[in-house]
Amino acid sequence: MRIDLNSDLGEGFGRWELGDDEALLAVVTSANVACGFHAGDPLVLRRVCERAALRGVVIGAQVGYRDLVGFGRRFIEVAPEELTNDVIYQIGALDALARVAGDRVRYVKPHGALYNAIVHHEEQARAVVEAVRLYDPDLAVLGLPGSVWLKLAEQAGLRVVHEAFADRAYTPEGTLVPRRQPGAVLHDPDEIAERCLRIAGGDPIPAIDGTPVRIAADSLCVHGDTPGAVRVAEQVARRLSAAGVSLAAFARRGG
Amino acid sequence: MRIDLNSDLGEGFGRWELGDDEALLAVVTSANVACGFHAGDPLVLRRVCERAALRGVVIGAQVGYRDLVGFGRRFIEVAPEELTNDVIYQIGALDALARVAGDRVRYVKPHGALYNAIVHHEEQARAVVEAVRLYDPDLAVLGLPGSVWLKLAEQAGLRVVHEAFADRAYTPEGTLVPRRQPGAVLHDPDEIAERCLRIAGGDPIPAIDGTPVRIAADSLCVHGDTPGAVRVAEQVARRLSAAGVSLAAFARRGG
Amino acid sequence: MRIDLNSDLGEGFGRWELGDDEALLAVVTSANVACGFHAGDPLVLRRVCERAALRGVVIGAQVGYRDLVGFGRRFIEVAPEELTNDVIYQIGALDALARVAGDRVRYVKPHGALYNAIVHHEEQARAVVEAVRLYDPDLAVLGLPGSVWLKLAEQAGLRVVHEAFADRAYTPEGTLVPRRQPGAVLHDPDEIAERCLRIAGGDPIPAIDGTPVRIAADSLCVHGDTPGAVRVAEQVARRLSAAGVSLAAFARRGG
Amino acid sequence: MRIDLNSDLGEGFGRWELGDDEALLAVVTSANVACGFHAGDPLVLRRVCERAALRGVVIGAQVGYRDLVGFGRRFIEVAPEELTNDVIYQIGALDALARVAGDRVRYVKPHGALYNAIVHHEEQARAVVEAVRLYDPDLAVLGLPGSVWLKLAEQAGLRVVHEAFADRAYTPEGTLVPRRQPGAVLHDPDEIAERCLRIAGGDPIPAIDGTPVRIAADSLCVHGDTPGAVRVAEQVARRLSAAGVSLAAFARRGG
Repeated sequence: MRIDLNSDLGEGFGRWELGDDEALLAVVTSANVACGFHAGDPLVLRRVCERAALRGVVIGAQVGYRDLVGFGRRFIEVAPEELTNDVIYQIGALDALARVAGDRVRYVKPHGALYNAIVHHEEQARAVVEAVRLYDPDLAVLGLPGSVWLKLAEQAGLRVVHEAFADRAYTPEGTLVPRRQPGAVLHDPDEIAERCLRIAGGDPIPAIDGTPVRIAADSLCVHGDTPGAVRVAEQVARRLSAAGVSLAAFARRGG
Repeated sequence: MRIDLNSDLGEGFGRWELGDDEALLAVVTSANVACGFHAGDPLVLRRVCERAALRGVVIGAQVGYRDLVGFGRRFIEVAPEELTNDVIYQIGALDALARVAGDRVRYVKPHGALYNAIVHHEEQARAVVEAVRLYDPDLAVLGLPGSVWLKLAEQAGLRVVHEAFADRAYTPEGTLVPRRQPGAVLHDPDEIAERCLRIAGGDPIPAIDGTPVRIAADSLCVHGDTPGAVRVAEQVARRLSAAGVSLAAFARRGG
Repeated sequence: MRIDLNSDLGEGFGRWELGDDEALLAVVTSANVACGFHAGDPLVLRRVCERAALRGVVIGAQVGYRDLVGFGRRFIEVAPEELTNDVIYQIGALDALARVAGDRVRYVKPHGALYNAIVHHEEQARAVVEAVRLYDPDLAVLGLPGSVWLKLAEQAGLRVVHEAFADRAYTPEGTLVPRRQPGAVLHDPDEIAERCLRIAGGDPIPAIDGTPVRIAADSLCVHGDTPGAVRVAEQVARRLSAAGVSLAAFARRGG
Repeated sequence: MRIDLNSDLGEGFGRWELGDDEALLAVVTSANVACGFHAGDPLVLRRVCERAALRGVVIGAQVGYRDLVGFGRRFIEVAPEELTNDVIYQIGALDALARVAGDRVRYVKPHGALYNAIVHHEEQARAVVEAVRLYDPDLAVLGLPGSVWLKLAEQAGLRVVHEAFADRAYTPEGTLVPRRQPGAVLHDPDEIAERCLRIAGGDPIPAIDGTPVRIAADSLCVHGDTPGAVRVAEQVARRLSAAGVSLAAFARRGG
């Protein structure tokens, strides 16, 4: 049994820090590194790439809307042609820093509102798929099982990786409970770790109403930018290891 | 006899257009394409790269300070480590768009205040050289003869290309007359073309005080963002061709 | 008979110019001046305010989404509390420059995608109304007849001004024909001027299908950022004056 | 005996937080509130203004260079005319939010690299003075004793307030020891409080070489964005109060 652990990194900007990149890099196997449009100045990104390369963590490009003040968390009605080029620009910029760090961008995971939009928004989903395909069709793409984004990526011949959210409640249908709803976000490290173990083992977890639901995932997303988040990620990693699940990136790394 | 003609392109941003990229691409042999920090959104940049690739014009990355409102024309005291990574980020972003257009970035030319700063500012010059060397030591660098920037680039083993300014007056010592000074900028297409011909042929041109001065250059910079600029560029190209000077890029192109 | 002519001004940004502010200020009676979020740097805005004050043109704040690269033309899902403060910030900034120019902001007109969104988007409409009310309830608001924006503004006790678009086709129901549809935008100066005359006189104009439709408006919007736009605006003004319609701002000006 | 305590506030931006505004507002008498160019989105600024108004803390505009990624800490060669309007824009924007919070901007304190630049840079100092004078000549200005900025402000008839830095070492001549030098920044709360007490009482403090030096100041600046900073500020306030020094703003507040 093996599974990947991914987390969002490089989310500072100039004077502003966010999350504990160093602590998370000791835990995760894949780093979703911001690309400067919603977070991440070039110096911060270079450092994350270097630390990831040192620790053997695979680097992915976390592309987002161009919206620093909104941290990429607000939907923007970007035209597809613009979005495609915004994404190529971001991947290319991060890949340059990753190469200088002796590694390369190996996958793409959209961030925030873009991630959510392309679960359904076909035009934008297609625009992001197009960007990845044009930049490098060997890049894997990470996303929500059942999303238009992954469906179109698969059709375009890209390697598709499904992820589950360790700290989010699921509906009986296997979709995420919206954040505003009570109980949507889990906080107890033990409970989160237990769910991860079940997902990794292919066992069902309880949906928000208790119904058992099976979530198929190759990667588990752990968050790092909230208080206690690092502790949760560490607990997840410990628990999985103790149960004999090997933590391994879905993509290979190296320059 | 052969010489390169270079011009700044891709300087629009969203709704704002600047210069006539299409007309200039019909004239020049090297395109200094903006990289998004002082001008150039990803869509505009992609289009310029595609048109340049179609026309056989070599693509260079025109990197600048992060300053849209100042168009990169204001000196910023950026720390070297920041500047190095800002430049890597910009080259990588443009290179991604150039590759998608079937070509590649082949050289680097700093823009505006950064161009001027690193004529003398050793710390920033070294930071830009470092960025080019780390990203791809096969990239050529374009700049002012005698600048610290070219000196350090040469020491770092980069291929150095000297440029002359077709529409600027020179001092008897061969340096540029500062823009504020009367007579610093030339406007007459015939006079400018005549000077280009002399520079291409290795003949002296009259300095601002009439003294003959020899300007050694592998490339002639023609500007495109002022009224009449395209006409000047066209006149320069015609005159050089008529005199048997072949216009040829200093760098090879191709993907 | 009297009517106001309004136009969008101050839409340059640093090196980038857009529209011919000086020519339009000679024609219009109300200037919708950008506020820096979608266009307009402080220096450009100060100059427009000074020229408007000199010419006796009333100054309005054209507030928009924070989106320079999209020129405020892309919908952004801004939370109401954020939008309210974004709008207060923009009005205050422009008002400062207007005061220094010896005048004041007298009305508010949302720009681009925000203008379109709050025709229907109640949450954002309310957020903008709240901003105007909090900043200065004596400011008038300019917008589309029948929009949620004007309805909520009226309920909040603000002075509401209806505008018609001189160069846009209308449906038989009196709403704008979407831009993508053929025939949505008119270009013939004489036809546009003729329609303006009818609207000013309270007479029906032909809808896109020929049906006569009456558009009640206190202000006519003329555009200035496309080729030929200034000529259209001048033609409209001439025609109205010749027919004895006095061009007069809906708001008073002065410091 | 009385003195003012000032601190930089409102330095978050969107998702990014910085410093503990709430804790500092319980301690200081004057709040230097960012204005959006180097930090501070409109929502954060509104909240700080409201909390300051509630707590009776005087609001000042902390204007800076337009440089989010550099946090306003990098010198930018802004032309005077641009700088003047940038500063008017910033004061006006913050004043709008302060007014909505029931208060007003009462003074101006430049931030970071602008603060440092106009100690000597006459052109930029004059540009900032001009902005304050044009916006509202009743605003006080806060700055370094002996700076060109305060000299020109005084000549322009503005009310000038001198500040001392509680946690910085001074030279025997009474100027600040540059940050890079060892011993330039003090960290011990007791030592800092002791120095504040002496400055408030008009007594000399030991310069970095031990020489007694008298620092005349109407206001003491305490920092809030580093670990332990709030504790230092609290200790300073306690010590001053215990010694019978009343903490009182130099400017009056109220709408």
